Amino acid sequence: MTETPHPLYDRHAETLNRALTAITERGYWSAYPESPSPRVYGETAAADGKAAFEAYLGRDFPLDQPDGGGDRVATEHSPFGVALNVRYPHADADQLVAAASAALPAWRDAGPRTRVGVCLEILDRLHRNVFELANAVQFTSGQAFVMAFQAGGAHALDRALEALAYAYTEMTRHPGTAGWEKAAGKGDPLRMSKTFHVVPRGVALVIGCNTFPTWNSYPGLFASLVTGNPVVVKPHPGAVLPLAITVRYAREVLAEAGFDPNLVLLAPEAPGEKLASTLALHPAVKIVDFTGSTEYGDWLEANARQAAVYTEKAGLNTVVIDSTDDFAGMCRNLGFTLTLYSGQMCTTSQNILIPREGIDTDQGHKSFDEVAGGIATAVGKLTGDPARGVELTGAIVNDGVLERLDEVAKVGSPVLESRTVEHPSFPEAVVRTPTIVKLDAGDTETYSREWFGPISFAIATDSTAHSLEILRSTVGEKGALTAAVYSTDDAVLDATEAAAIEVGVHLSANLTGGVFVNQSAAFSDFHGSGANAAANSALTDGAYVANRFRIVQSRRHV
Amino acid sequence: MTETPHPLYDRHAETLNRALTAITERGYWSAYPESPSPRVYGETAAADGKAAFEAYLGRDFPLDQPDGGGDRVATEHSPFGVALNVRYPHADADQLVAAASAALPAWRDAGPRTRVGVCLEILDRLHRNVFELANAVQFTSGQAFVMAFQAGGAHALDRALEALAYAYTEMTRHPGTAGWEKAAGKGDPLRMSKTFHVVPRGVALVIGCNTFPTWNSYPGLFASLVTGNPVVVKPHPGAVLPLAITVRYAREVLAEAGFDPNLVLLAPEAPGEKLASTLALHPAVKIVDFTGSTEYGDWLEANARQAAVYTEKAGLNTVVIDSTDDFAGMCRNLGFTLTLYSGQMCTTSQNILIPREGIDTDQGHKSFDEVAGGIATAVGKLTGDPARGVELTGAIVNDGVLERLDEVAKVGSPVLESRTVEHPSFPEAVVRTPTIVKLDAGDTETYSREWFGPISFAIATDSTAHSLEILRSTVGEKGALTAAVYSTDDAVLDATEAAAIEVGVHLSANLTGGVFVNQSAAFSDFHGSGANAAANSALTDGAYVANRFRIVQSRRHV
Repeated sequence: MTETPHPLYDRHAETLNRALTAITERGYWSAYPESPSPRVYGETAAADGKAAFEAYLGRDFPLDQPDGGGDRVATEHSPFGVALNVRYPHADADQLVAAASAALPAWRDAGPRTRVGVCLEILDRLHRNVFELANAVQFTSGQAFVMAFQAGGAHALDRALEALAYAYTEMTRHPGTAGWEKAAGKGDPLRMSKTFHVVPRGVALVIGCNTFPTWNSYPGLFASLVTGNPVVVKPHPGAVLPLAITVRYAREVLAEAGFDPNLVLLAPEAPGEKLASTLALHPAVKIVDFTGSTEYGDWLEANARQAAVYTEKAGLNTVVIDSTDDFAGMCRNLGFTLTLYSGQMCTTSQNILIPREGIDTDQGHKSFDEVAGGIATAVGKLTGDPARGVELTGAIVNDGVLERLDEVAKVGSPVLESRTVEHPSFPEAVVRTPTIVKLDAGDTETYSREWFGPISFAIATDSTAHSLEILRSTVGEKGALTAAVYSTDDAVLDATEAAAIEVGVHLSANLTGGVFVNQSAAFSDFHGSGANAAANSALTDGAYVANRFRIVQSRRHV
Repeated sequence: MTETPHPLYDRHAETLNRALTAITERGYWSAYPESPSPRVYGETAAADGKAAFEAYLGRDFPLDQPDGGGDRVATEHSPFGVALNVRYPHADADQLVAAASAALPAWRDAGPRTRVGVCLEILDRLHRNVFELANAVQFTSGQAFVMAFQAGGAHALDRALEALAYAYTEMTRHPGTAGWEKAAGKGDPLRMSKTFHVVPRGVALVIGCNTFPTWNSYPGLFASLVTGNPVVVKPHPGAVLPLAITVRYAREVLAEAGFDPNLVLLAPEAPGEKLASTLALHPAVKIVDFTGSTEYGDWLEANARQAAVYTEKAGLNTVVIDSTDDFAGMCRNLGFTLTLYSGQMCTTSQNILIPREGIDTDQGHKSFDEVAGGIATAVGKLTGDPARGVELTGAIVNDGVLERLDEVAKVGSPVLESRTVEHPSFPEAVVRTPTIVKLDAGDTETYSREWFGPISFAIATDSTAHSLEILRSTVGEKGALTAAVYSTDDAVLDATEAAAIEVGVHLSANLTGGVFVNQSAAFSDFHGSGANAAANSALTDGAYVANRFRIVQSRRHV
């Protein structure tokens, strides 16, 4: 059981070492270029990727895994109105778990270095096919292409690498074997040789979401896989293809490296099948990663008791506006955040807290309505031209978002109304621009739940101190993934930071340029804190990886 | 919130650095000498410690903490028959949690280096009073003095230091602040300054056990405290004093260092009060550490859902005897393990699996009865002389053990009967020698539950392969903290190691000298694996500490 690492370890050692440095520094670093430019990826990469994506449509997806005797499912409807009709192999939970379990021992015994080498090769393979992946993300999630390429491709790969680096560090923080020698009075010293085996917990389950099928799934997938756990990937029925492509290339690399490809399995489900729940309660499933609703995340935490459960759920992302020395920059920055992917990010701001008496700015005093109006104008500028607008907003992921848009139209008074936009290239695409609704601090019932989608509230408070009270109470109770503050007063910035620490939410101060509160950078920013109700863990830190394996020790006399 | 470390950090930096090295090497190291010899601790240390212990007896314990208006409890009965009657301040759960919560912010904001400095000073203070502590452990747990000094004093402090080292590493694996600079086309690069706050989870609860009040409590106590969580220490009603002394000195050091002493609180309970459960379900309690029964540990895991719960429970510690080249050494070694503290260790072997046809040894073939008899003879030699015997066995911790001794006398046929011994120094001490009962592999119902106390089974199996099957099935289902194997055949050693890895139990091979399966060395051996039903975590590894705090980030433009 002594490890001789696979040649893939040496092939990727430099990338690994750079990533290991990055997680100790947490400054800027990225392994996978985020620009889809032909200057970076070559002249034909974009067209090749698009063609590869289109070749999947209307066919049986090529995946040689247990499939329950040829049963197939096809459940995706593209937000862009493109016919997908990809048919995926459909197995039941027992079949998947049995295949995964059988693959475990050889993968466990291969050791951390071999596993990390193979996982890095999988990332490399996915990166070579990143345009194909980006198309799949675009047409299932509704993200515009550039965002799908970045968030769904390059950044997802960066997050996966980050998880690998943390897990590798954790597995190798002490040697695989150690000598132990203790003086024993006048006799010979006691001498033992000790071996510390990294042992996976069992089968891991990753439950993907509709909006970020790769970005939200990769950290858990790769953290579990590299620590020795076979992974069953249960995609959202609306976004199967990006994870099917992921599983396809992962299996290809695993087989090439001499391992059982059933270490990574796709588990698409038929409508109403509740396969995620069946898998999550399976006695052999020992790790669950989930991104999605609070209701289902809470259910998993309460019921999948045999497993370590990592959840990212809903929250109330909040902005505190106190004052600014760059009113235009603030409005532009917030306008972009609300517009990007029509606000369908788990990090998009929802509750914008503004003193009802207005704020001081570099353009003089601005009333509450002027502040809310400034943000609305910024959104309007970004979405005014449909052709440019849709490259930011993308399309609406599903009917639930449309229903909430209808519902919110009956609440408060709109500062900005949502508009239906015709997509210049995809006539069937469902496109909506953001709405901003004016509320009062007393309308707690409305703004203390998540309205996922292009919906935010400009909320009139008595003062910034009152805004911080609301931040504390709402985020303290319901959680949040992001918070932002705008102020020219250091005391306000510090008070907001103190409140953010208390309720465990990551805070961005005075963003007026090219950094946005809804975006986090791998290797530097943490996503989620695990310190409030929006997530019970963070992507990606020591706690996220350390409990995915255990150390089992053996000792013998020398 | 930038940290200027407390001078205590510098005072103990060398110890910390040595401990940080030790956990990466996991060879032999110890910070606190385990010999109670006057050559190590000085001529008067033993007498001074005994006097300090005796000064507590029959009095109000000196602890200035919330006490519910002067209410006191006294619940201890010494296994040595010594009158204790120490009266402890008795507060209710809300009072304790409120006091602990109020102490949190300043401790959190002090930062990792200050906290580790203060915690190391607490260990130093406890070490200066280690004889006092050892007496308290002896007379509450029933351990003989030398063991109480080692396991309850020096080794407990080593385990605490180990936990501090892991937690410190985890909190400081990246800097508290980082610069981030990303190229932005032709414009100025984007520049952010990021702060990563180590934020505790909340109030931590440590639930102590009767047999190892300090050793089993210190890792959780110090791992939680150093990561910023105030700790409420709920001792077992039968072993309050060792933890009361611990809390006393911890509070003394905290106050001297300028912190609220309510960061560490004692929570003794009145009979039948169920204070542990009330505390464990308190919404502000976010971490629970527990050592004790499977039933209560499982209850905590299922019900204290607001908290991260770390449990060590019961198990079936197993020995596989296949063959040996040192029959006498094997019998002596196992005999010592069964005799030490009358088998009242969570690591004592219970199920000794021996082929019914006997085994090959350096003394020729030995029948099943000769193997079982050899171990019984070794126990007999160690306990034959009462004066020497009691220095190994100590006394019986509580009536539950005596009841199991009565019950086991009706099961199987004894290879060795338990004897009542009169303690030469403490006439009221309850002392029993170990019993070994002969069973057949078919008597699953008897040996597949834990018989905590001086009870073990010599179990006749069809073969070593059969023994490994039993190891797999029993430990796979019920868990174990330790396993041992004796064999001259490398294939058997490897097969046993493979089985141990599968069921997640730490394995010792061919122990015939001064290392015993029931003893683990801090900084080298892990205690528990978290990979089977006997414990959901290990003392002490990354997973044990990483989730006791969270990182909350703030970022501002530079």
